[in-house]
Amino acid sequence: MALRLTILGCGSALPAKKRNPSSQVLETPDGLFLIDCGEGTQLRLRQEHVKMQSISHILISHMHGDHYLGLVGLLSSMNLLGRKKEIRLIGPVHLQDMVESHSKYSGSYFQFHISYVVTEAKTSALIYDSAKMEIRTIPLKHRVPTTGFLFREKPKPRKLIKAKLEEYDVPVKQRVSLTQGKDLLLNNGRTVANKLLTLDGNPSFSYAYCSDTAYVPALAEIVKGVDLLYHESTFMEADKARAKKTQHSTAVQAAMIAKAAGVRHLVLGHYSARYTELEELHQEAIKVFPATSLGTQGLTIDIDKIVDDSLPIIQHS
Amino acid sequence: MALRLTILGCGSALPAKKRNPSSQVLETPDGLFLIDCGEGTQLRLRQEHVKMQSISHILISHMHGDHYLGLVGLLSSMNLLGRKKEIRLIGPVHLQDMVESHSKYSGSYFQFHISYVVTEAKTSALIYDSAKMEIRTIPLKHRVPTTGFLFREKPKPRKLIKAKLEEYDVPVKQRVSLTQGKDLLLNNGRTVANKLLTLDGNPSFSYAYCSDTAYVPALAEIVKGVDLLYHESTFMEADKARAKKTQHSTAVQAAMIAKAAGVRHLVLGHYSARYTELEELHQEAIKVFPATSLGTQGLTIDIDKIVDDSLPIIQHS
Repeated sequence: MALRLTILGCGSALPAKKRNPSSQVLETPDGLFLIDCGEGTQLRLRQEHVKMQSISHILISHMHGDHYLGLVGLLSSMNLLGRKKEIRLIGPVHLQDMVESHSKYSGSYFQFHISYVVTEAKTSALIYDSAKMEIRTIPLKHRVPTTGFLFREKPKPRKLIKAKLEEYDVPVKQRVSLTQGKDLLLNNGRTVANKLLTLDGNPSFSYAYCSDTAYVPALAEIVKGVDLLYHESTFMEADKARAKKTQHSTAVQAAMIAKAAGVRHLVLGHYSARYTELEELHQEAIKVFPATSLGTQGLTIDIDKIVDDSLPIIQHS
Repeated sequence: MALRLTILGCGSALPAKKRNPSSQVLETPDGLFLIDCGEGTQLRLRQEHVKMQSISHILISHMHGDHYLGLVGLLSSMNLLGRKKEIRLIGPVHLQDMVESHSKYSGSYFQFHISYVVTEAKTSALIYDSAKMEIRTIPLKHRVPTTGFLFREKPKPRKLIKAKLEEYDVPVKQRVSLTQGKDLLLNNGRTVANKLLTLDGNPSFSYAYCSDTAYVPALAEIVKGVDLLYHESTFMEADKARAKKTQHSTAVQAAMIAKAAGVRHLVLGHYSARYTELEELHQEAIKVFPATSLGTQGLTIDIDKIVDDSLPIIQHS
C-alpha cells in the first residue's frame, strides 16, 4: 500500500451543499492518518466506509472550528464502540485542553489512552518517524498558529536479483542488509557492491497538506518536488483582497506554490461557500499550473498512480 | 402561530443512519427555540429550511456530546452570516465555559451578544417568562446534571362579543382589559361581569421535552396534562437492565410516564443505534399508552392539531 488520500470534506468555515468542513484520511504503509476533523467527520468516515477504529493518528492543523469541531464526537464514538487502542493527537497546544474539557463537562472518560504531540507553527519539525514513513510540520501563515503536514515514505527495500544471490551463495540472514543498500561481505574479506546484487526498490511517495494559509512563497521550498500537494484555495482572483485580509489563498496562489515547488500534482480545496460552481476557480489555477485537480468531497487519489496533468480519480460519493 | 415542533435529530450517543443526535426546533408565539444541539445540527436546520438567524434561544439539556457538540459550529455560522442580534443560551453551568474556550482557542469572537441562563437539575425553575409563554425546567435523572424543558403558552386573549360592546358602549381603551378577563367598570360605579361581554380565547398549548433520563415516576406530576410529551426511549424492554445502568428509559417507561401524566400525545426518541428498525419498540409503548408516535428525523408536529391516538404528521425529509 502506497499513499492513498480520500477527501472527506473540502468546504471552509461555512458549510455548503456537499462541502463538509475540512477532513481527509490518508492511508499509509503505517495505517490510517486523519488530517483535520471538522464537524460531521465521523459521519463522513461512515459514508466513505473508512473504519474509524483503524485510525491511529489524528492531525489538526489549527484551532478554527471548521478544522476541529468533529474531534470530540469522533473520539466519543470510538469509545462507545469499544476502542482500547491508543490514539495519538497531533496539533496545537489547545487541543489537549479542548478534549479534556469535554471529559470534565460530560463526566465521560475515554477507555483508551490519548497521547499528544504539540505542534508549533514556527519551524518545520519532525513529528512522526518510523521505518517506513516520516511526517514533518509545515509552518503556515494564518490568523492563529497553523501548520500543514508533509508525509514522506522512506526509501523502500532494494529488490534482490535472485540469480546473483545464488551465484554468490548469499546466506538468508545477510539478505535484509542487501535490501537496505549495504554491500555484501564475503567470507574471504572481499566485498561485492550492492548494485551488482540488487535493483532499485519501489519508488517512495510524498504528500503535503497546506490548509489554512495566506500566500507564502517560501512554502514552495518546503514542499519542493512532492508528488501531491493539497493547497487551500478559498477564493478566486476577484476576491484576492479578501484572501489577503482573512489570510487565505486564491486558487492562482495555490498554483503558484505548486509551480515554484515543482510538485507532480496539485489538488485544490477549502472553497468559500460563496462559490456554488468551482470550474472557473479551477480554470484560474490551471492557467498557472496545468496539473491541477479540484478537490471534491469523496475524491480518492492513489498518489503512486498520479501521471502528469491528470489524476486517476475514483469518485466514492 | 401555536406551537410547532420539528425533530432535527433523534438518535443517541452513537449516530445511526438517518438518526442525527438530539436537536429539535420549536416554533412558538415568541419565535424559534432550539432544544439541544448535537453535532451536525446546523446542517439539519438547513435541510429542514429553518432560518438559523431566527433562533432566539438555544436550550441545552445536559453536557453529553450528543446534545451539545453542534453548538459552537452553529454559533460560528450565525456569526459568519452577519448576525448582530443577541442570542440566549439556556443550560448547565459549563455551557459558557465551553463556548468561551472556543473563542480562546480560535481567536474568533462573536459579533453578537450571548447571554446565559444557568439551569440546575434540582427543582423545576421558571427560566423564561413573557406575555405569551413561559418555560420551566424539568429535573431529570441522568449521569450528569440534566433538565428537560416545559413550554406553556399563557392563556390567550378572551374574544370580545361585538354586540355587547356596543350595548354597553365600551370605550376602546377598556377593551384590552376585557380580553384579559377583567370586569367592566361603568361610569355609574357598577360593574359588568367579564363573562357577559367575552367568550373564551383560543386554547393554549404545552410541550414537554424530557431527554435524557432514567425512569422517574415523579416526572408525571410535572408534565401532567401537557399536550405533547417527548420522552426519551433509548431502549426496548429486553434491554431494561442496560437502561437502568446507563440512566436511560425504555419505550414502555416513557409510555408509563405519559399515561400517569395524562398527556394528550407521546412522541418517542433518542433511540439506541443498536436498533435498526423501531416498530417493535413503538409497539411496546403503544400497549401501555396508545397515543404514542415514533419520533423520526424531519417529523413536524403542529401541537394545536393533535387529536387523540393520531398525529398530524408532516414528514419533511
